[in-house]
Amino acid sequence: MKNVRPKRGPAKRTSARKMEKPLIFITNDDGYEARGFNTLIDIALKFGRVVAVAPERVQSGMGHAVTMANPLHLRKVREEEDLVVYACSGTPVDCVKLAFDMIMPELPALGLSGINHGANSATSVIYSGTMGAAIEASFYNIPSIGFSLTDHDPTADLTAAAEYAERVIYRVMHEEVEIPMCLNVNIPTLPKDEIKGVRFCRQAKGYWREEFVERHDPRGRPYYWLTGIFMNQEEESTETDEYALKNGYVSIVPIQIDMTDYRQLDTVSLWDF
Amino acid sequence: MKNVRPKRGPAKRTSARKMEKPLIFITNDDGYEARGFNTLIDIALKFGRVVAVAPERVQSGMGHAVTMANPLHLRKVREEEDLVVYACSGTPVDCVKLAFDMIMPELPALGLSGINHGANSATSVIYSGTMGAAIEASFYNIPSIGFSLTDHDPTADLTAAAEYAERVIYRVMHEEVEIPMCLNVNIPTLPKDEIKGVRFCRQAKGYWREEFVERHDPRGRPYYWLTGIFMNQEEESTETDEYALKNGYVSIVPIQIDMTDYRQLDTVSLWDF
Repeated sequence: MKNVRPKRGPAKRTSARKMEKPLIFITNDDGYEARGFNTLIDIALKFGRVVAVAPERVQSGMGHAVTMANPLHLRKVREEEDLVVYACSGTPVDCVKLAFDMIMPELPALGLSGINHGANSATSVIYSGTMGAAIEASFYNIPSIGFSLTDHDPTADLTAAAEYAERVIYRVMHEEVEIPMCLNVNIPTLPKDEIKGVRFCRQAKGYWREEFVERHDPRGRPYYWLTGIFMNQEEESTETDEYALKNGYVSIVPIQIDMTDYRQLDTVSLWDF
Repeated sequence: MKNVRPKRGPAKRTSARKMEKPLIFITNDDGYEARGFNTLIDIALKFGRVVAVAPERVQSGMGHAVTMANPLHLRKVREEEDLVVYACSGTPVDCVKLAFDMIMPELPALGLSGINHGANSATSVIYSGTMGAAIEASFYNIPSIGFSLTDHDPTADLTAAAEYAERVIYRVMHEEVEIPMCLNVNIPTLPKDEIKGVRFCRQAKGYWREEFVERHDPRGRPYYWLTGIFMNQEEESTETDEYALKNGYVSIVPIQIDMTDYRQLDTVSLWDF
């Protein structure tokens, strides 16, 4: 829809028509050059105008980090009809804050993050820069969606992910949604015709167990690379995102940010100080 | 208690006695030289042996970030009876992972983070490196506690914070606690005798609204400093940590990490794909 413009008619009408196109915000954590990010821009342009602000460099695992000790740099890297893309020196959440509080002329209708190269299901949501940014966007009283493909390969086939991203965006833009809304969408690494559909899920319980790989620098000093595997603590449950993904479904988990442990609250409230 | 050692008796007995002392893990996000961190070490040594791993540099606002693109460096910065302190090049969560998966000879009885210079109440829990580390420690099936003083001044009076930290640690070590348990403890900036006591709370709803301060480098290029103020969305509620702190109480919020929005889940599950 990006290049469809009325060829005739007064300029004013074109302008009014443009005003009707909703504004969509996009970011990611793999950096502005990532394929998943640029695929998401192409999809979003079918629905409206796009302002995108993404990190200069890979920011995987940055979670909800914000840059407090250093200033942020910003540069415009692309400008076309209905599209402006900026690269930012900070984290994904920094990108959101700069976009909403400084760059965008109006509040967008929707905030998107991704398409991430790598899964952000289960407990990974708290480590994920993709989801950190999606959550932050939802603080501005707009629906937001984070998309992740369960394949870390930057050259992975994005066809199925793109199709499901478009379907989810369409749904969110055409339903009456209650605010706050933030969706964590993961797409399994499968050919499009092998994906069984969409499952709405809860976040699976689990944790990452690390194995540090030790190396030595030329001076003999050790350093450590973080590696890890995800341990699903409820393999048997059919309600989780992990279950959906393992069984060939796209998983959608709505996310909220009240982390209060109400179960513990009842217990510890009895403690005497 | 740190230097209290039986002067007589066979070496074996001393060793057995040492084995009885519980191991306590400590980290923070202000770096290993911060006063709040070293105050927390002094308190913990009253309860047992301490292994502490803290960032080399200030890591405020790092949330649950982990270092994936770079390796981690680690160096021992202090070693005394019952105490070893390491400085790590990574984030607070990196410190926890390195400590639990590589450094500590046994699982500690307790994980501590702080004492942070600055509040981590309400929604700040998701941006907080202090709480990111405390949450990560709780993944190892031990109780964990993050402590924050609502004063950013690194020279702030820590007397009241230290006293309440000791009381909370004592309580957690002497109660039968259910795992997982992670407590977010904030102490108001008040003289000790003006603090009214402890309140168990839920996390207040709110968000940070940013104002970016623009500066220019000597070449005329702009850069931006992130500043912001917290907007409490439920000033009227008496159940929140924000209310407790504003009214002179120490706030304790138990934290869990299932971020599923179950309310939205019921609604979106009806969507047709």
